[in-house]
Amino acid sequence: MTPVERAQMAMMLEVTASPKPGNVDRCHDYDTTRLEHFLASAILARPALEKAASAGACGGAGPGAGAGIGEVFREAVRLTTDHSGGNTHFGAFILLVPLLRGGDIPGAIQVVRETTVEDALEFYRAFSHVKVRMLPGDPLDVADPRALEAIRGRGMTLLDVMDHSREHDMVAREWINGFRLTRRAADELHRTGCGKEGVVGAFLRLLAAETDTFIVKEHGREVADEVRRKAGEVLAGRLDLAGFDAECIARGINPGSTADIIIAGIYIALGEGWEWDCSGKESTK
Amino acid sequence: MTPVERAQMAMMLEVTASPKPGNVDRCHDYDTTRLEHFLASAILARPALEKAASAGACGGAGPGAGAGIGEVFREAVRLTTDHSGGNTHFGAFILLVPLLRGGDIPGAIQVVRETTVEDALEFYRAFSHVKVRMLPGDPLDVADPRALEAIRGRGMTLLDVMDHSREHDMVAREWINGFRLTRRAADELHRTGCGKEGVVGAFLRLLAAETDTFIVKEHGREVADEVRRKAGEVLAGRLDLAGFDAECIARGINPGSTADIIIAGIYIALGEGWEWDCSGKESTK
Repeated sequence: MTPVERAQMAMMLEVTASPKPGNVDRCHDYDTTRLEHFLASAILARPALEKAASAGACGGAGPGAGAGIGEVFREAVRLTTDHSGGNTHFGAFILLVPLLRGGDIPGAIQVVRETTVEDALEFYRAFSHVKVRMLPGDPLDVADPRALEAIRGRGMTLLDVMDHSREHDMVAREWINGFRLTRRAADELHRTGCGKEGVVGAFLRLLAAETDTFIVKEHGREVADEVRRKAGEVLAGRLDLAGFDAECIARGINPGSTADIIIAGIYIALGEGWEWDCSGKESTK
Repeated sequence: MTPVERAQMAMMLEVTASPKPGNVDRCHDYDTTRLEHFLASAILARPALEKAASAGACGGAGPGAGAGIGEVFREAVRLTTDHSGGNTHFGAFILLVPLLRGGDIPGAIQVVRETTVEDALEFYRAFSHVKVRMLPGDPLDVADPRALEAIRGRGMTLLDVMDHSREHDMVAREWINGFRLTRRAADELHRTGCGKEGVVGAFLRLLAAETDTFIVKEHGREVADEVRRKAGEVLAGRLDLAGFDAECIARGINPGSTADIIIAGIYIALGEGWEWDCSGKESTK
């Protein structure tokens, strides 16, 4: 399995694992975003993932060579928004692109350090035509028309942008803290075991440990903290997983950032021999 | 969407559409073959699908140029059996490979006419290490060790092999009769409509019209004819689809050849503007 295939498999394995409280999975669609939108993105994002993994036409060695990271984001978003499902994997791309470029977590840390102002501008251009909000009310929110000017004026790199967002966005925070939760998600997968039971287990452990910032943005901190507590109760055997899932679905509570980090964790774990299908064979070859 | 992406999307859209009586779908796994095996095959088969679509390193124009069709089958089988799920898409590859090489149905008809004895030998080599039976009891069954010798001795091309299997295998029959059911599946998709409802509708219509030869091999002709009749009753509103699906699942009845033909039909229909996600946009670009 190539690194790009590992990234595609990670996107596929995350969305098909169930039951995951509140998220689209193989037995739950939302009205406008359905299972097949997520799977289409995993298939159709490939050229951008290849660009992320490649040193690119500019030649040059080292993790930062090739098409700029910002350009890769723009391509990934373009390839995966040509359908009616909207945002499926934008957060996952924020993690997968530097991981693919750098090869592993230490490499990705180096890649994000080398991002430029142009990467930040490309990133904003990518998201300007899709309905994603990173920092509502902030002049650096991707939906704010003044954002490009502000980034140029302040000379912000894409790493600076993520740093600016870190308090409100656990995916952006990964760029700052060395992909801490990505590493943890991979460790949880190794610990909870192979296949989709492993994915569900790692998902619940992450959800119980960290307040999902996507839920904070959509429903406020109180609801997000309630979800975190309840995930812990499911793990402790005091709350039924299926019931918790049904409650989240009914309330429209979708731990989307946790899902993004699980995808990055599956990508790492697959490279370390975690078995996606419990076949007893190493998943890498 | 490139032709290869259309093929991958077709594999994904077929398996995620539900409820389809008896088959693996997003809410039904079999013990050893699960949804994620089918989706992994759609992702991991890509290099073989690219080879099928490409004129190949040998240069040369025309639909028959490039890596031999038999070689492409061998590659596709190799890439998609490195997991515990076994046969997921072998029948689909028998249809998709000539369709990708030829571009469309008239092109595929030309491609299958140009297959060679070496293509037949490669095809048999591909299937020799996996548990697939095409003609149980026949010296040309892919599991029979004498098959390679028999093919060489008789000078059979891959088209001859499919001709030999046509009575017992509706997928092989497509090579002989000009991809008649593939065309019909695409027409049914245009007629029944966009998205997964369209896939389920086309699947039921095909199942009601043609006795599934995979069911014949597994359960005998009587059971296969019963399934065909019952699919017609579902279409006529006299039988509940969910109940029929549950009955098939309980009895282990899996209309696998119909699914293969639906995949080929989705591939064709996507190229003709059929909307996989009911977005109102053309699916080709």
